[in-house]
Amino acid sequence: MKNFFFKNYGPITISDILNTLNIDSKIPYLNQKVTDIKDLFTSNKNEISFFHSKKYKEIAKKTKASFCITTENLKNELNENCKPIVVKNVLVSTSLVTEKFYPDSINDDFDDTVNESNDTEFKDKVKFGKNVLIGKNVTIGHNCLIGHNTIIEKNVCIGNNCSIGSNNIIRNTFVKNNVKILDKCIIGKHGFGFFPSESKNLRYPHIGIVIIEDNCEIGSGSTIDRGSMSNTVIGKNTFLDNQIHVAHNVKIGQNSIIAGQVGIAGSSIIGNNVKIGGQAGISGHLNIGNNVEIAGGTGVIKNIADNSKVMGYPAKNIREFLKENK
Amino acid sequence: MKNFFFKNYGPITISDILNTLNIDSKIPYLNQKVTDIKDLFTSNKNEISFFHSKKYKEIAKKTKASFCITTENLKNELNENCKPIVVKNVLVSTSLVTEKFYPDSINDDFDDTVNESNDTEFKDKVKFGKNVLIGKNVTIGHNCLIGHNTIIEKNVCIGNNCSIGSNNIIRNTFVKNNVKILDKCIIGKHGFGFFPSESKNLRYPHIGIVIIEDNCEIGSGSTIDRGSMSNTVIGKNTFLDNQIHVAHNVKIGQNSIIAGQVGIAGSSIIGNNVKIGGQAGISGHLNIGNNVEIAGGTGVIKNIADNSKVMGYPAKNIREFLKENK
Amino acid sequence: MKNFFFKNYGPITISDILNTLNIDSKIPYLNQKVTDIKDLFTSNKNEISFFHSKKYKEIAKKTKASFCITTENLKNELNENCKPIVVKNVLVSTSLVTEKFYPDSINDDFDDTVNESNDTEFKDKVKFGKNVLIGKNVTIGHNCLIGHNTIIEKNVCIGNNCSIGSNNIIRNTFVKNNVKILDKCIIGKHGFGFFPSESKNLRYPHIGIVIIEDNCEIGSGSTIDRGSMSNTVIGKNTFLDNQIHVAHNVKIGQNSIIAGQVGIAGSSIIGNNVKIGGQAGISGHLNIGNNVEIAGGTGVIKNIADNSKVMGYPAKNIREFLKENK
Repeated sequence: MKNFFFKNYGPITISDILNTLNIDSKIPYLNQKVTDIKDLFTSNKNEISFFHSKKYKEIAKKTKASFCITTENLKNELNENCKPIVVKNVLVSTSLVTEKFYPDSINDDFDDTVNESNDTEFKDKVKFGKNVLIGKNVTIGHNCLIGHNTIIEKNVCIGNNCSIGSNNIIRNTFVKNNVKILDKCIIGKHGFGFFPSESKNLRYPHIGIVIIEDNCEIGSGSTIDRGSMSNTVIGKNTFLDNQIHVAHNVKIGQNSIIAGQVGIAGSSIIGNNVKIGGQAGISGHLNIGNNVEIAGGTGVIKNIADNSKVMGYPAKNIREFLKENK
Repeated sequence: MKNFFFKNYGPITISDILNTLNIDSKIPYLNQKVTDIKDLFTSNKNEISFFHSKKYKEIAKKTKASFCITTENLKNELNENCKPIVVKNVLVSTSLVTEKFYPDSINDDFDDTVNESNDTEFKDKVKFGKNVLIGKNVTIGHNCLIGHNTIIEKNVCIGNNCSIGSNNIIRNTFVKNNVKILDKCIIGKHGFGFFPSESKNLRYPHIGIVIIEDNCEIGSGSTIDRGSMSNTVIGKNTFLDNQIHVAHNVKIGQNSIIAGQVGIAGSSIIGNNVKIGGQAGISGHLNIGNNVEIAGGTGVIKNIADNSKVMGYPAKNIREFLKENK
Repeated sequence: MKNFFFKNYGPITISDILNTLNIDSKIPYLNQKVTDIKDLFTSNKNEISFFHSKKYKEIAKKTKASFCITTENLKNELNENCKPIVVKNVLVSTSLVTEKFYPDSINDDFDDTVNESNDTEFKDKVKFGKNVLIGKNVTIGHNCLIGHNTIIEKNVCIGNNCSIGSNNIIRNTFVKNNVKILDKCIIGKHGFGFFPSESKNLRYPHIGIVIIEDNCEIGSGSTIDRGSMSNTVIGKNTFLDNQIHVAHNVKIGQNSIIAGQVGIAGSSIIGNNVKIGGQAGISGHLNIGNNVEIAGGTGVIKNIADNSKVMGYPAKNIREFLKENK
């Protein structure tokens, strides 16, 4: 639950948290405060965590969090120093509490704090195109280009020697050095994560950012969503072609090559030296190993081991696929 | 043949219509006028309709239209009060006559009537980004945001509490309340509908609009085409992810969830509570029932009954698909 | 190796070329000059070529090039008037030498030479939207429209009666007559071509352009990359729907119809009167014949003969596919 850029509005009293969750409780520590919300593993004393599935039982036993949002069934699995806050739906409640700490992380309305690039400190340092807008909490390194009509919204850090094209919109993103972003990309918006509800779907907070490591290239018309509880990462020297979609929390390794119109669903992890052909799709929450080759058009719905070559929908060994489809 | 926004240039004399169709006829009612063109079912007295396939025989017998574009073979099936105008290709002729009534519906050149947002009546009411352009025949409700570089072209109605991002282009669209449109969408352009012709394809008119119901969200980089003879509709509380394409005349129900890079071809109808995984494709003119789940990457080429779960290309029962592909 | 628009910085001495390739050689003609780099077939006297595979042996024997980048193994196959320059990796070396002749072809940074349209010679001749930018070496014919925020970067030739929408970015492109480009397209950027390298991938030059023939239409959100060693061509009266990606060196014939979200990988050649359904993908370096029909969602990985109808992944005869998948 890394928080790089969003402002943490804590500490928050337990009383406030219970109000947010619409819980009327008589617990004695209503005036205690928590400073942040994190997962069971990374949270510390005076922080609040969440515990929604038995598969995290072992971590729950060791968590250092002082409080934890959980269910009646799970609460006894928690470390004895961690006080349970019992709710019906842990994820929805966690979402509401996260929003309380990071209210800016849920609202992706356009950034109305931006200024014309010539009215910023960067005007003599960066080569700007026309009509470039720059938000608050932005830093830009040496020898950078930022093309026409591009909007660098708030909370963006750009390294040295970056070439950013025209008509891009970037927010909540850390772009390292020697990165090239072509035209018309949208980077750092919240992902497609929400709790469905008949009256009005409830969007959950996205407190992560996008990290684009050194030497990457991002093709035109691509969209890269920022993470919800972790970051979305594009590894060093990885190249993305045009019209690619990278969903929230995805992590792509180094030296990977991803061809046009590929889509990678939320929270999947892609290794190093991976090659993905055009229009391939990767389902969510998968692990794709190192040195994997995925043929164009492939639909990946299971984890893929290191050094595999796959093709087909669903993906299988490429030799097998081609033999069956001669 | 609903006409919400386009200006009807009728009434038009039958003589003018015959000229348009390059027909030299001696029919006695050349000076009679028709006020609109509609389908057989909805057209009324003093309107013209079209009849191109036997499957509409029953409706043709009851139509109230005063005139009807049809073929030599079909003309005797028409209601006796409806006078036939006999042509070789009914759809091409209908297209030409529709264009005569609605000449603005065929031309999707950029809207050169737009003004800077600060020169419009909305400047104190709407929170505008920089470089926003607003066309004619636009209304915007209370408490709306419209981001940088967005172009609201002519014939757009936006309700209350809408958040529209940056770099969008919207025309001929009815956006209801509490709708969120992220960045870089193109909404309301004509669809990919035309009659192929070796010299120069003949585009047919698109007199429909796009309707986006309350509480919807439209992801970045999506395109939603307006309808040709009906409207394109996104139902209440339906959420679309990034890079989705919704073609002309498509109707999507309520509370549906559509993941990234999905494409829905022209005139398909999607029910309520439908979930569609990333990169799935739906062919044109299909009916997808309520509560249907379509896995990511699926290619749907047939109708799907209510409550089905499908996967594969072509789509089949998901259990069957997964069993066959273990 | 057609060079329409990029400036050739030759002639270049052999000595300079050897320096570029980091070769320390004692060959006696270091001061000789070459004027251009082309393939074995089209190159002439005083030009340099490249020869990297035995399959070009016959052409190598007849080449008129004065010099040729090749390997130790292949050098003896060359015409006796063609002097070998022996390297380890012919394609990487060719890339470096091409960059030497055409340094502008490798750098797709945003065009900072553009002017506001009203400051150009075209201001009374072309109907411009607001905030249109025009680069150097641009010509525009009669009766053209160019929409809001569109950037015509350097090296673009637009014919007569063209309607170009809003938010497009076009460079290194020859748009002929009566062409319609909708909104938000990126046309003429370099393709996704580079030599992978762990430290930093090496992009190869793209000295080709994009040619869009008469009467074409390009849908919203599409990307068309320019060629590397040849041009990318969209044939006369061919229509592309929204969100299509056409990679470098692709050639599409006349009167073809390509539906939404199709992707065509690099160097494939598509015939005349071809119909491609939505979301279909064509692998690279393929030949698709005339009058071919490719169903929506199809993945094409082999050449397809004239008049075929295919469907499936991989593509097969459509009747066979539908029979197998009843």
